[in-house]
Amino acid sequence: MADLIPPYALPETNRRLLLARRPDGTPQPADFVRGDGPVPACGNGRFLVRNLYLSADPVQRGWAANAALTPLGAPMRALCVGVVVESRDAAVAAGEIVYGYFGWQDYAEAGREDLLSRVVAPRVPVSAYAGVLGMPGVTAWLALLDLAPPKPGDRVLVSTAAGAVGSVVGQIARQRGATVIGLTGSADKVARCTDRYGYAAAYNYKAVDLAGTLAGAAPEGFDIFFDNTGGPILDAAIRAMKRYGRIVQCGTAATASWSPPPAGPRNEREVLMRALTWSGFVIFDHVARFGEAIDALSDLMLAGHLAHDEDIEAGIDRAPDALVAMMAGTNSGKTLIYVGEG
Amino acid sequence: MADLIPPYALPETNRRLLLARRPDGTPQPADFVRGDGPVPACGNGRFLVRNLYLSADPVQRGWAANAALTPLGAPMRALCVGVVVESRDAAVAAGEIVYGYFGWQDYAEAGREDLLSRVVAPRVPVSAYAGVLGMPGVTAWLALLDLAPPKPGDRVLVSTAAGAVGSVVGQIARQRGATVIGLTGSADKVARCTDRYGYAAAYNYKAVDLAGTLAGAAPEGFDIFFDNTGGPILDAAIRAMKRYGRIVQCGTAATASWSPPPAGPRNEREVLMRALTWSGFVIFDHVARFGEAIDALSDLMLAGHLAHDEDIEAGIDRAPDALVAMMAGTNSGKTLIYVGEG
Repeated sequence: MADLIPPYALPETNRRLLLARRPDGTPQPADFVRGDGPVPACGNGRFLVRNLYLSADPVQRGWAANAALTPLGAPMRALCVGVVVESRDAAVAAGEIVYGYFGWQDYAEAGREDLLSRVVAPRVPVSAYAGVLGMPGVTAWLALLDLAPPKPGDRVLVSTAAGAVGSVVGQIARQRGATVIGLTGSADKVARCTDRYGYAAAYNYKAVDLAGTLAGAAPEGFDIFFDNTGGPILDAAIRAMKRYGRIVQCGTAATASWSPPPAGPRNEREVLMRALTWSGFVIFDHVARFGEAIDALSDLMLAGHLAHDEDIEAGIDRAPDALVAMMAGTNSGKTLIYVGEG
Repeated sequence: MADLIPPYALPETNRRLLLARRPDGTPQPADFVRGDGPVPACGNGRFLVRNLYLSADPVQRGWAANAALTPLGAPMRALCVGVVVESRDAAVAAGEIVYGYFGWQDYAEAGREDLLSRVVAPRVPVSAYAGVLGMPGVTAWLALLDLAPPKPGDRVLVSTAAGAVGSVVGQIARQRGATVIGLTGSADKVARCTDRYGYAAAYNYKAVDLAGTLAGAAPEGFDIFFDNTGGPILDAAIRAMKRYGRIVQCGTAATASWSPPPAGPRNEREVLMRALTWSGFVIFDHVARFGEAIDALSDLMLAGHLAHDEDIEAGIDRAPDALVAMMAGTNSGKTLIYVGEG
């Protein structure tokens, strides 16, 4: 690992993974190509970040589909944890750990608008700031507590229950006194849900009769459904809700492409007859609140009340495969790619 | 019309319209049969109601499909306005105007659990207590103001805009300073929306390109959608919502049968990306609040700020056709059947 204390001797080459073609649905490794360049110069009022961890997040499927967000030939848009190695912004110091949109590359020239959080004094290993203390963890904290704060005794259902968002939702809900049920995609993840994340029960949605399983898990219905998938899981869960239940729509991982939107059973009668409240949550509308959420989550972590797992690959060339594996659900914890070497 | 001042000389016969077979979707006239019987005796703690107006309401489609609510051979479940002609309940006086579940018949023996409202001193013609001051008007008042109170400048979209619920929603929203856009099913109803109910514009959904029309009516999107239809109107409207907009699901008139639920385009991504809040409203959960809502609506009516229209048929045998016409949208105001004759 490179010495983290500036000043650095910058290398000649900035390793980069570029988006080579527009993905058809979920990105595939062949959609990316190595295309190294020079380390960028640092503009006035800006700073240079040495990436340490590239993050692979489900939201990148949308980013890869969006030409305005990820032009062809540009480094893949990605959240990363890095260290400021040079700063021409008087308010940002070299040596700061930062988390933001630095892309799949070793070095990024960035401004404060590219940051989601600044970690002046890390309280935990810095990889956590891309996961349990990053966008996924902050999403879980704000979406659950803003839109559907659990009460003691509530039955809470979480989809992608072992994922970077779901695993934090499950733990917060249980700490608020709820009984939390998880849906996930493998026996290994079922075990992590119950052994690590405090779920009362978890089910492999690929291996069970979903309607019957949900009816058995909550005979009187779920008070809260925190949904990261949409699709058939949503269709079953909405029909297992208690009247006046709340659904948080935080992701739609089950559907690879929305143009045109796929068909499913109409759900408006369930919203009506069950008097549900179904709300969407977009974390990027809440960037100003990352600090408060990170503080709260850090307190939980340091008190030993917030388990998290990381699935860390090493080497920038591993990023496409790691993204594909994460989207397929074969990862076992927050997917990160360590690039601090070399 | 029978003299409304008790005591009455009760007739020999109670005219009744019975549900003869379980409807397949929307009830049809042949689903009902006249089956008169004796005027029921009044039990202790109960009262006898002489119906004046039978109401035809969209919710009757669900009631007719439900064997627990409307057994075959029983009078069709219906809300009605009537007068108490005999009371063995010390708290209910003969001569009171009452609104409740009295069914398609001349006389009903009822208890307080069958009442939605009691009109000790009518402030307006009593037919209004089944419409603008009845379940439809109270639904509009509570659902809009509970779940999506409009602010000045809001763009509000209303489906079944000229209907008994929609026409009240439109007027309340405009009085709160919103610009209100209506969707309805005929040129005549479009004209009533703009001439009578204060809509800034209204459109015949059968005659326009819905997506283009909604985009033109609210280029920045709708803040609120008050939906009584679901189906394709919902699918278009949800894609015309402003971010952080609110949808009130108050009815699903577009779909005649929900077993099995029909398919439509998946809408969860719209909930997510637009950060919508989509809530269902069931008026029958709010019976205790009818009084407050009727008082507020009566004040608006008496101040000349609440237009309403009634489409009144005469004679109990007209009830099935009136229900069918209302479900088909060929009525022109709240559908009532006057049965006070003979």
